[in-house]
Amino acid sequence: MKIDNIRKYEFGNPYDTGAVVADAVKMVGIPDGFKFDMDSQTFLYDLNEKDMVFGLGETLRGINKRGWIYVSNNADDPSHDENKTSLYASQNFLIVDDGDRAFGIFVDNPGSVTFDIGYTDMNVMTIHPEYNDTTFYLINGNTPSEIVKSFRELIGKSYVPPVWAFGYGQSRWGYKTADDIREVAKGYKELGIPLDMIYMDIDYMQDFKDFTVNPKRFPDFENFVKEMKDDGIRLIPIIDAGVKIEKGYDIYEEGVAQNYFCKKEDGTNLVAAVWPGKVHFPDFLNTKAREWFGDKYKTLTDVGIEGFWNDMNEPAIFYTEDHLKEVFEGIHEMENKELDIWGFFQFRGLIEGIANNPEDYRRFFHDFDGVKVRHDKVHNLYGFYMTRAAGEAFERNNKDKRILMFSRASYIGMHRYGGVWTGDNMSWWSHLLLNIKQMPSLNMTGFLYSGADLGGFGCDTTEDLVMRWLEFGIFTPLFRNHSALGTRQQELYQFKESASFKNIVDLR
Amino acid sequence: MKIDNIRKYEFGNPYDTGAVVADAVKMVGIPDGFKFDMDSQTFLYDLNEKDMVFGLGETLRGINKRGWIYVSNNADDPSHDENKTSLYASQNFLIVDDGDRAFGIFVDNPGSVTFDIGYTDMNVMTIHPEYNDTTFYLINGNTPSEIVKSFRELIGKSYVPPVWAFGYGQSRWGYKTADDIREVAKGYKELGIPLDMIYMDIDYMQDFKDFTVNPKRFPDFENFVKEMKDDGIRLIPIIDAGVKIEKGYDIYEEGVAQNYFCKKEDGTNLVAAVWPGKVHFPDFLNTKAREWFGDKYKTLTDVGIEGFWNDMNEPAIFYTEDHLKEVFEGIHEMENKELDIWGFFQFRGLIEGIANNPEDYRRFFHDFDGVKVRHDKVHNLYGFYMTRAAGEAFERNNKDKRILMFSRASYIGMHRYGGVWTGDNMSWWSHLLLNIKQMPSLNMTGFLYSGADLGGFGCDTTEDLVMRWLEFGIFTPLFRNHSALGTRQQELYQFKESASFKNIVDLR
Repeated sequence: MKIDNIRKYEFGNPYDTGAVVADAVKMVGIPDGFKFDMDSQTFLYDLNEKDMVFGLGETLRGINKRGWIYVSNNADDPSHDENKTSLYASQNFLIVDDGDRAFGIFVDNPGSVTFDIGYTDMNVMTIHPEYNDTTFYLINGNTPSEIVKSFRELIGKSYVPPVWAFGYGQSRWGYKTADDIREVAKGYKELGIPLDMIYMDIDYMQDFKDFTVNPKRFPDFENFVKEMKDDGIRLIPIIDAGVKIEKGYDIYEEGVAQNYFCKKEDGTNLVAAVWPGKVHFPDFLNTKAREWFGDKYKTLTDVGIEGFWNDMNEPAIFYTEDHLKEVFEGIHEMENKELDIWGFFQFRGLIEGIANNPEDYRRFFHDFDGVKVRHDKVHNLYGFYMTRAAGEAFERNNKDKRILMFSRASYIGMHRYGGVWTGDNMSWWSHLLLNIKQMPSLNMTGFLYSGADLGGFGCDTTEDLVMRWLEFGIFTPLFRNHSALGTRQQELYQFKESASFKNIVDLR
Repeated sequence: MKIDNIRKYEFGNPYDTGAVVADAVKMVGIPDGFKFDMDSQTFLYDLNEKDMVFGLGETLRGINKRGWIYVSNNADDPSHDENKTSLYASQNFLIVDDGDRAFGIFVDNPGSVTFDIGYTDMNVMTIHPEYNDTTFYLINGNTPSEIVKSFRELIGKSYVPPVWAFGYGQSRWGYKTADDIREVAKGYKELGIPLDMIYMDIDYMQDFKDFTVNPKRFPDFENFVKEMKDDGIRLIPIIDAGVKIEKGYDIYEEGVAQNYFCKKEDGTNLVAAVWPGKVHFPDFLNTKAREWFGDKYKTLTDVGIEGFWNDMNEPAIFYTEDHLKEVFEGIHEMENKELDIWGFFQFRGLIEGIANNPEDYRRFFHDFDGVKVRHDKVHNLYGFYMTRAAGEAFERNNKDKRILMFSRASYIGMHRYGGVWTGDNMSWWSHLLLNIKQMPSLNMTGFLYSGADLGGFGCDTTEDLVMRWLEFGIFTPLFRNHSALGTRQQELYQFKESASFKNIVDLR
């Protein structure tokens, strides 16, 4: 299929990211209306006074994106303060609209892309890809909704979850045992508040190993899944990107034997650390590795599991083995000098910069179906391709059913395989506001099944915040209350006004 | 003077904090309407459905304080996120008002005091002093404004600044030389925007030593002060709490010789680090040390300076010599073990917890006019007494003039000696909102000359945020644009809409 009102411009040697499924009118030169600055490799567009800019999916600030900088560079950063420029997702589609004319653009480039939308100069939008191997789509249409319609033809149909996934779900990092989960079910049942899902965060696994279940905490897991389902509750386990390095662990052993993990320049597997301790990262960009990992979800669908959430797939890196060594060397060097106050800040910065260090994303490579690509150039595809692994496997292995799937990291194209949640927000009123602003932006980029952690994930919540957030949550496809270990418990039965909470969930 | 509608209850052995100047009706027992839990040493009050709670000065969240926890514990924490409980100030006065009856309370306790105002239980307010040596005032009155009036009689008249201090001021951490400051003056003059003050942040000092001026960066400082004043601009230097440890530096030498610095248990002077590197903290709670330090302001008033801002006086501690040693010992221990993921978080926490570590505030002592007191028990007085040092000295040494004085840390009582600014906020829209909410709360606790860093201190600002914040700033007594080193420059002449900016300042 070729879409006539979409023009396609290529710069450098763009990757086939899998974002689009249809063809567009191929053009040469610079997109109409834009300038291109060769020195800085930057696209420029002059905004007029009335122009509003919509889109960019899961980003900060307003629905009209004018006045800030947004960097598409999937980041595991739980502090979604107003001054941040990157969150977990990269959805490089936006619409410029002054009421008289509107057009859309999609910058299909899986590396870091910086959108300065009237920040440096209120009347100029600049788009700067770190590596300019870009397919640039210009989407024409008479109205924003026509443009979105065409764009969605370009990128293909959105993932649709099973109908029960529109129910209400309870989650918390910290449900450690089957009994913890039974208690949640009971708490809701006693108040008569309908509950369709209980999410299982990392605690259910054996030593945080993907596709394992801790048999002491969850004895006879298959029966437990059934017991819950008989009560109308589906269990939704989390799957993390990193595979624990542990002799004898089948997924680790198979991945090493078949070269399915991301490698460093010298050909050895990258050693990073996340929840399980030291891990390797599956090379989801490699079709064979993707099939292999995707088939692993069957371990859990075979015992009755019907949904998953993919996490830590930016990928989040607590540290890499190589970088941690460098840090300790740096500490020794500093300790031997008399530490003046600037030295002290340098010392602190050294440690504070360990997690998700930009240099670490340059230390490893993908085998992108035969082409060796340094990770940072395709960074924003990683979460997408992890979710694609699952989605393709469900098509192969679970033909008769819809499986629930959503992911933290994302890129346009992933919308065909799953939904998204907006990651680790905080129990802040300003994050309820952010949630409200993000939903339409996500929707227009193709992500239909989406939502935020209702009540807030990090920090201690309050009853009134949970109440108001839940009221908004009625209108978001993903309707899930989720919170972090160590924060105040926020299951609806923890509070006084349970009749009001019941009323809200009943309305849904 | 004795105020009849204020009742005074004493618990333990309260310090004479200097907060109040009048007497009240002395009572025994528990304040009317309150309960006291002996085990947890906590005051409890049952809030009714209509009760609103106003006050607490410079704190987070709404004007009605219900629904959160506030901890009076002056803290150098620039991340004023919604989940924080302590900022730079402790103003323990609040009013409970349901529309029919209202009363005020003032908890005069200079240690940490926790106010849980309907957070744990929506209908209960609890007040828990860490050390219950408390004078508890109960203020009766028919309306909130009557209660505030009585309370202000109790605490004495508020500081009034010179009239020019209601003008517009420009500040930035990073004006390094006289020429940098001349450029600011020129930028404003060219656009015809009136400017009454330029603030000098830490860069003007020689190696961050209090009451010194770097002679290379500011040659002939006295003439420069005059040159600026001839242009209608007053220079307002910063003064920090810590005194640099440096042989030959007169203030250091005098303070050591006369025992004017805070001491550890073993009688040696505490060694902490802030901007100058290693410092001692003047013991402002000691009357003689206070007089000595206060007289030092004369060094600068003698060359024509007419105003100051006192900073870092919580006191902020980047690290203490003793604690840093412990941290390095901890690092060595961890390095020798195989660092698992929880060990890694412990390692990171070790370093992240260096600054303003609670334990450091228990390492030193004051000579509170003859009584040895551990710092944490009177922590919230430190900034107050630094500012009192200056205010008392101005009364002695600068009788003919009003001197501008405001402080970052504060406690009720300080309002008689100076104003406050609300410390290191961020260039966030939510912090403009916070500023709006804080002003009435500060005002009712006696702090009349107050304001926030307009445009935001930390992070990069935007033109529209500076514009809207300045518009609000018209209504705050302190009307100052201030920003941090390394952030986007936000002097009004940096932006396009200078006519609108001029219009706002002209309106003021």
